[in-house]
Amino acid sequence: MELAPYLDSVAKQIDSMIDRSFGDSSNDLDKASAHLLAAGGKRLRPAVVMLAADAVKHGSSSDIIPAALALELIHTFTLVHDDIMDDDSMRRGVPTVHVKWDMPTGILAGDVLYARAFEFLCLAIAKENAKLRAVSMLARACAEVCAGQHLDMLFEKRDDVSEDEYLEMVRKKTGVLYAAAAGIGAILAGGNAHQTKTLYLFGLNTGIAFQIQDDLIDLFSPSNRSGKDRASDLRKGKQTLIRIKAREKGIDLSQYRRDLSDTEVDDVIRLLEDSGVIDEVKKVASDLVAGSNRMLDMLPPSPERELLKNIGEFFVTRSF
Amino acid sequence: MELAPYLDSVAKQIDSMIDRSFGDSSNDLDKASAHLLAAGGKRLRPAVVMLAADAVKHGSSSDIIPAALALELIHTFTLVHDDIMDDDSMRRGVPTVHVKWDMPTGILAGDVLYARAFEFLCLAIAKENAKLRAVSMLARACAEVCAGQHLDMLFEKRDDVSEDEYLEMVRKKTGVLYAAAAGIGAILAGGNAHQTKTLYLFGLNTGIAFQIQDDLIDLFSPSNRSGKDRASDLRKGKQTLIRIKAREKGIDLSQYRRDLSDTEVDDVIRLLEDSGVIDEVKKVASDLVAGSNRMLDMLPPSPERELLKNIGEFFVTRSF
Repeated sequence: MELAPYLDSVAKQIDSMIDRSFGDSSNDLDKASAHLLAAGGKRLRPAVVMLAADAVKHGSSSDIIPAALALELIHTFTLVHDDIMDDDSMRRGVPTVHVKWDMPTGILAGDVLYARAFEFLCLAIAKENAKLRAVSMLARACAEVCAGQHLDMLFEKRDDVSEDEYLEMVRKKTGVLYAAAAGIGAILAGGNAHQTKTLYLFGLNTGIAFQIQDDLIDLFSPSNRSGKDRASDLRKGKQTLIRIKAREKGIDLSQYRRDLSDTEVDDVIRLLEDSGVIDEVKKVASDLVAGSNRMLDMLPPSPERELLKNIGEFFVTRSF
Repeated sequence: MELAPYLDSVAKQIDSMIDRSFGDSSNDLDKASAHLLAAGGKRLRPAVVMLAADAVKHGSSSDIIPAALALELIHTFTLVHDDIMDDDSMRRGVPTVHVKWDMPTGILAGDVLYARAFEFLCLAIAKENAKLRAVSMLARACAEVCAGQHLDMLFEKRDDVSEDEYLEMVRKKTGVLYAAAAGIGAILAGGNAHQTKTLYLFGLNTGIAFQIQDDLIDLFSPSNRSGKDRASDLRKGKQTLIRIKAREKGIDLSQYRRDLSDTEVDDVIRLLEDSGVIDEVKKVASDLVAGSNRMLDMLPPSPERELLKNIGEFFVTRSF
């Protein structure tokens, strides 16, 4: 199977579960909780949960769709809260929750999604022991994601963040939730310790690569494609790998910490491309994916194992 | 055993676990997460978890202390987030998290406590099936607490909230977490459906009574006793049972929606006492406790069952 139709089929299942569970909102808080969820999204973390499960035990993914949804709920909760902290106004092509409603409703909407993630995780059909390990893994991931977001914000106040510090921040902020997605899929499917660890590390490294690509998309993709404010990282002084690699080459991006026209953004892109920064950043991401895809060869061959490799490649080639 | 030394012994166990697990904070986010936790608190929810467990099966509470801590962590997460939404500056006698740090750190500190609650719940020593039911119950409680806080804020914009609406809000905002505390204690101790339901409902009703008493404390107790801003409900126009009962008697408290001197607060108290409002409010709370204490008679007699009854009575007589 090709990746694109596979991802479409997962998205349809997740969307339909979201519609059943969150579509009938009778009050404002439920509406606010459902707002970003219903606005679409590629449902990549649910796909990783399900592929990891099927790569361990073929056919097991259909029993654990609620766990796949749980990962999407956690991801969405972090978006809702991050948007408040970063004061972003657009996400998935719609106004962010705290902009459409207000800050308190944004905090609570995120908190509701957080709770419902654990509710849904418990609804997966799997051994009780496996579900408890999955709950623990998801909870630990949530705490690490918070630590990553905290570092990300701290780094905005610094201009000497090293590549290692950046990678540690991104490991926590984005890698760990992909790691948990793959790890939870493996655990619920009855994977052994070796399989679970392999899939966890696959998720971790491809997740880091995903975030590096996200930083490139922030710069390159127009808002109507990415669904987000363009070049917001540049404006806010976010410490991205782009900024760090540019600094190493004597290019100071801190002068662009202000509102920028599309022409100015294009000028920055040309400068970064000509100096080789963009190519170097892309190489870090593609090397991570190549390494984690090689690890997957420890699993028995299966169509799902190949789809996981395709997801890794998609992470670092997508433009939205 | 008397209630006071029992509560002290639980608080010591919980405090020591908090110290071991949160005391060694190497970074700002961990410090912010530990801030309110370490500032004390009566640890009433952990006590309810442990008493409910022992009331079902004597001696079982020592295995589930991590679950007792989980309830305290959830309670503290809701305080940290509520303080942001309500912009309160003092709590447990110390500055609130978003005041001592900032709003983003407050959101993240709450989110970390939320995650760690589920981690700790999984560490309880109990049957796997029971732990999963406890995770589900805690997650459902969290979603309801958010709904309750949302109603509480919506009610600030209205001046026609009925007693039934108030009780429904308080059931969600405060009752449900005490219900989950007692219910989780019962489940983890291996309680049957009837015992679990009895203890859940006991927690629910005494929790509602607890909140009514909290509203009285807000009015009556000086800051140095309650650890919070005095009469903040009055200033903010919070729809409390006091305000609703006053309105029924033609006393309009909306004129006090501003900064108030202690003398003015004392005048309001006299007005409410003379008109019988305070007695009526106290009666609602004590009737709830009397009813839920009677329900406990369905459990076999035990010192812990009596301590649970004492806790109910303490909830509506305490002054801090």
